[in-house]
Formats: sequence, C-alpha cells, structure tokens
Amino acid sequence: FTSKLPDVGTTIFTIMSALANQHNAINLSQGFPNYASDQKLIDLVNNAMNSGYNQYAPMAGNLDLRLAIANKYQRLYNSTYHPEKEITVTAGATQAIYCIVSAFVRPNNEVIVFKPAYDCYEPAVEVNGGKVIPIQLSAPDYKPDWNKVASKLSSKTKMILINSPHNPSGTIWSKDDMLQLQRLTEGTDIIVLSDEVYEHIVFDGEQHQSACLFQGLKQRSFITASFGKTFHNTGWKIGYTCAPEYLMQEFRKVHQFNVFSVHHPSQKGIADYMEDANTYLGLNQFFQQKRDLFLSLIKDSKFKFTPSKGTYFQVLDYSDITDENDVDFAKRLTTEFGIACIPLSVFNLNQKDDKVLRFCFAKTDETLLKASEILNKI
Amino acid sequence: FTSKLPDVGTTIFTIMSALANQHNAINLSQGFPNYASDQKLIDLVNNAMNSGYNQYAPMAGNLDLRLAIANKYQRLYNSTYHPEKEITVTAGATQAIYCIVSAFVRPNNEVIVFKPAYDCYEPAVEVNGGKVIPIQLSAPDYKPDWNKVASKLSSKTKMILINSPHNPSGTIWSKDDMLQLQRLTEGTDIIVLSDEVYEHIVFDGEQHQSACLFQGLKQRSFITASFGKTFHNTGWKIGYTCAPEYLMQEFRKVHQFNVFSVHHPSQKGIADYMEDANTYLGLNQFFQQKRDLFLSLIKDSKFKFTPSKGTYFQVLDYSDITDENDVDFAKRLTTEFGIACIPLSVFNLNQKDDKVLRFCFAKTDETLLKASEILNKI
Ligand SMILES: CSCCC(=O)C(=O)O
Ligand SMILES: CSCCC(=O)C(=O)O
Repeated sequence: FTSKLPDVGTTIFTIMSALANQHNAINLSQGFPNYASDQKLIDLVNNAMNSGYNQYAPMAGNLDLRLAIANKYQRLYNSTYHPEKEITVTAGATQAIYCIVSAFVRPNNEVIVFKPAYDCYEPAVEVNGGKVIPIQLSAPDYKPDWNKVASKLSSKTKMILINSPHNPSGTIWSKDDMLQLQRLTEGTDIIVLSDEVYEHIVFDGEQHQSACLFQGLKQRSFITASFGKTFHNTGWKIGYTCAPEYLMQEFRKVHQFNVFSVHHPSQKGIADYMEDANTYLGLNQFFQQKRDLFLSLIKDSKFKFTPSKGTYFQVLDYSDITDENDVDFAKRLTTEFGIACIPLSVFNLNQKDDKVLRFCFAKTDETLLKASEILNKI
Repeated sequence: FTSKLPDVGTTIFTIMSALANQHNAINLSQGFPNYASDQKLIDLVNNAMNSGYNQYAPMAGNLDLRLAIANKYQRLYNSTYHPEKEITVTAGATQAIYCIVSAFVRPNNEVIVFKPAYDCYEPAVEVNGGKVIPIQLSAPDYKPDWNKVASKLSSKTKMILINSPHNPSGTIWSKDDMLQLQRLTEGTDIIVLSDEVYEHIVFDGEQHQSACLFQGLKQRSFITASFGKTFHNTGWKIGYTCAPEYLMQEFRKVHQFNVFSVHHPSQKGIADYMEDANTYLGLNQFFQQKRDLFLSLIKDSKFKFTPSKGTYFQVLDYSDITDENDVDFAKRLTTEFGIACIPLSVFNLNQKDDKVLRFCFAKTDETLLKASEILNKI
C-alpha cells in the first residue's frame, strides 16, 4: 500500500501550532487572526442560514457572490471577468490551486515554482505526476532573476506558479517583474497560476500588481484568492478563482467532481457583506497598523528585518543571535521562550537555511505586545 | 490547451435543476430537501461562529466532531474508529472520494465501478490516469453477479467502489453481497471505497450493511458519509471518511493539500447537534413516511415501480407510457408537464436505457402531492 505522496509529512503549520498549544506559547506561526471577525459578517451568514441558503449552491458558486467578485475586479483593477463564465467560488484558494493543477498537469509536464513556496503547490503537481522545476529566490528581497527564469522554460513547461504578495517572505513583485513574466510567456501555451490571496494586504502605498492588470498575462492566467485572508475567518474556507472562459471551463470539469460546490450560507453572507467595498478596501491600513506596531516594538531587539511589503507575515533574521538551524531555533523559541513562528527553510530548495523566521502579525495588539516582550529578551 | 477531462460536460444535476427553474417545474431531479433544516442545528452553527470557531479547524477535522462520529460507529455498528487517527472530516463525501482515489490510483491502475454509478466516481479515476472497469447492474433489483465481479479482478485492480444504499437506483446490498465482496478481496491489496452517504435512510426495517461490519472488509475500506444527506443541508458540504490508520494517513497527505480543512463553525455545530443521537436515528422513519406517501399517491398512475429500499430517491418505470429515450422524456416532463427528474441512462454503461427515471422525495408533503397530481395525469 504505497500512496502517491509517500514522503509527505504533516505540514509545518500543523506541527508548529500543535507545539504552541502544547507549550502554551504565543502562536505567531500558522497564519490566522486571533481576534473576532466582524459581527456584521457573522450575522449575514446566520441570516443566509435562516433564509434558505442551505442546499447546494450552483456548482460555480452563488451568483450574488460571483457578481460581487466581478464588481471588485472592475473597481480595483478596471478588469472584466464575466461572473457566470470566468469566476468560480472554491473551498479556499488551496482547493482552487489543487484543481487548476489537476485539470492541466499531466505526467512529466513541468511546472515552475519559485522557492520559498507555500507548501501546497508542489504536492499538487506531484500527485498529478508533474515535475516541479524550482527556482530559488534569496533573502532578503527574494527578487527573481528573469534570465534564470528564461533558461528554465522549455516546450515541456505547462505552468508557472507565482505568488505576490508573497508568503512566506512578505515581499511583492513589481510592475516590471510582471512585465518580464508577460514577455517570457508571450507566444507560448504556458498557463500562469497567480496566487493572490494577500492582494488586499499591501503596505506603504504600493500597488498590488495583479496578473489581471497585464493583458498578455491575464489571457493565460488563473488568479486565486481567499476570503479567509480578506475577512479574517480562515476557518470558513471560501475562496475563488478567476480566469478566461477557455481555461475556466476546463477547471470546472475537475472542480465539479472534486467538491461540486462550496458552503452556501457563507457565500451568500460574504456576497451581502461585500456590497460595502470598505469591507476589503480598509484592509491595507488595518494590517499596516499591525505591521508598524510589531516592528516598532521589536526595533531594539537582536532580530534584524526588512519591513514586510505585503501579507500578514514579517520575516526576522536571527543570525546575530545563534547559528542554530532555523527549524531547531523555531522549536526552541516555542518550547523555551513561549513564542511560535515558522522556519523558512521548510519552503526552500534543499532546505536552504537563511537563518530567518516568519512571524504572523494578524493578532491583537495585546498579543503583539506580549510577543515583542519575549523577542526583546532573546 | 486540452485539459485532462476534455469530454466532461455539465452534470445532469445542474442541467435538470436549471431546466426546472427555467420552466418553473417541480424539481424532483437533483437530490436536495426543499424544506428548512432543523432550527436547532442552524442556531448551533451560529453559536459556533459567535464563540470563536472561525479560524482553521485541525486538518483532520474538529475533534468534537470526530468524537461524535466515532461514538456513532460504536453505537450503531459496534465498530471502533480512532477519532484522531482513523476519521477525517471532508468537504462533503465528494471531496473525500476524489482524494481517496487521488491518493492511491496511478496511471493504468484499474478501478471497479458498478453501473449505474453516481457521476463523480469515474472522473476522479480518469483525472488520475486510472482505468475504470465498469460492471453494469440491471433494473429493477440491480443485484451484482459475484461470478462476473470475480472475473474482472486481476493484479491490476487497485480499488473497488461500492455504494449502498444506492444512488440512483434506491436499492441496497444484502449481508450476503458484502460477504461475497469480502471473500473476493481476501488476501489481495485491493482498497474498497464504500460510499455510504445514505446509511441513515433505509426502509422497511432493513439493516444498512456498512463495510465496517465485516472485519475483512473494514481493514481495507474507506467509508464515506455526508452530513448534508443526514441533516438536510446539502449546501453545507460537510462529510467525512473513516478508514484504518495505515490508509487514513495516506489519504490525509492528499487531503491536506486539496482543501487543508473544512468549514469550522459547521463542524462544531454538527458535533454539538449529534450529542442527541435521535438527530440521525430518526431519519429512516422520516423518509419512510415520505416514500410511502409518494408511492401511495402515484399507485394508480401509469408509472410502474419497485419501492425504494434506501436513499431519498424512487425509480419509476415509464415503459407503459412511451418508448421515448429517458433523457428526452425527462426533458419533456420538465418542459411540458412541469416536473423534473433524472434519467438513469446517464449513469449507465453506454447510456443503457431501461426506461426508468429517478425522483427525489426529500420534499415537503405538499410538493409530493403536487408532483403526484402531475404524474397521475401522464
Ligand atoms: C493551512 S494552514 C497555513 C496557513 C497559512 O496560510 C500560513 O500560515 O501560511
Ligand atoms: C451534487 S448535485 C447531485 C446531488 C445528488 O446527490 C443527487 O441528486 O444524486
């Protein structure tokens, strides 16, 4: 009985959260808010349950929600997605990513993945028999070398996975990066999967460079997104994907047999909630305040950092403190010091260890204060 | 851009429900209740949202829910599943089935599927490069010929998919059927996937023959189940799967990268709801009353039938009415007569047409009455 993913272990998120619970540590590891999500949104979901939204949603998603998503793309990016043909609601971005890969990647197809990479990308490729072509980026700016990327592309390249704002590094890609990617893929059949789950969490007045802003990219791209990140309820597992119709119709062939449809009352509640665009437009500011607070609190600690440019994660460099490897140090921080984080090496090629750790600041100010008191003592 | 499921169309459920809506027809096609689910359950989910169950559930599911499931198996089948190691909560049974197949089926592995078969089984096998070995069963009793099954097994057989109570036929497998299956798989490496989503909907005092009741089967089986069917809210998309640990740990490797986890507040609400076992023990009686009502109302119609033995579906034979094929007749029933149902041929090998249609009786008594008035006039 060998399965198709024999080497997969438990995710680092599960491991570190479990260790945090066990040692009663402050948990800045797994990315999730530790404050209540908006009561208004909860009440809207409850309303949906009480007004009959308890049976199967349409396979592609509740139509009100797809309209709200289409409106958002129009408003923010001046980009048109047809709500019936080009948008599908999914069980989180993870399920979208898994099905996008499953729909297109055949045995021996190559898929470009930039490292460090969120941990669901590669198993999705592998379970479908595809071959991951990793491109390692380096701390602290994690900027791609586009000549190197060009050298990895071939007729075997089926897909390129990109992710900006980037988890785990907290960096973002520039307009120039996106233009380079557009240029490299021009005239090819390569599909781009652009994981944009942190699109509404970008700092210092920068603009999120969505793949939909570049016509040559948009026509070959799936964009994935997550309401869990945007509306502070990661446990609801509602996300979506947008793509041109010729791609979306192939995605749905897998989606309909993977989950068929997604929690209906949450979809309706979120659709109603999004009628007020401030619900997502205010997010940059909300998290910038948290990032700034966290960094100001630890500015005199022994950790070094480049401020996060997006996501709700901050990477800290501990090379002035110890030369322990990052997994060991992360575990020791949890068990001895009472603060949990994520070692970045687990997302790197060959566990490359840059002596950096990822801390989630989607936490109450009180938690950030307590965390900083520990970090300042290390 | 060819995808891996080029020939998949829209599911018959989506097609018939859309046609029903368009023609304002009574919709007995897609299987879902048209009455409110229990207010108590809705309130428990709302309580969960209001008491902090909005972040990621554990990857394998909320532990209270896994305990409730384990208790159910103990109580109903005297069968032990370890809540932490042998039970995983899924985004409906469909997602469980997709991941079970993805975890084990490699290109060219053979998977036995009994026809008529629910429509998500085969695409899951195909997207993973496996080969479906179909075994056609025949109306009205759909009883397997175990010699024929034996002749289809070989060293290439990786998995056997079974489904009792059976959608779409409304038949159930006997204890003898399960013993035959146990005998045939003894000493092999074959994995059994037993789709038991209608386990609590069995009529006339019969016993559901769960795979967990047969030790030789249990040790090689995944059982899949669905709270949507059991608690009348198909749109919540919460199900689960049970299996021995050596199988479950491989399943979770795929599950954690397919969806990671499932709508947390619903899991907690369902766990609390299941504290009262009557919530699921009463289901046989609830649906038997509906089946009996429906059949008594149409007993003088031109449709012939064998009473459904399980599920919330009744198959009706229309061969005394017309020799039209079942897809055309089902569409005409919707557009001309105002009643929608599901033609069985779409689930058969080579669209074998037995002139039978499937009607869902998970509907209010009033809807069943209106439906019968139409059916009696045909
Ligand atoms: C699915 S648990 C991981 C949550 C997350 O997105 C992260 O911590 O990076
Ligand atoms: C996923 S829509 C199909 C619902 C169902 O289980 C059925 O009608 O058989």
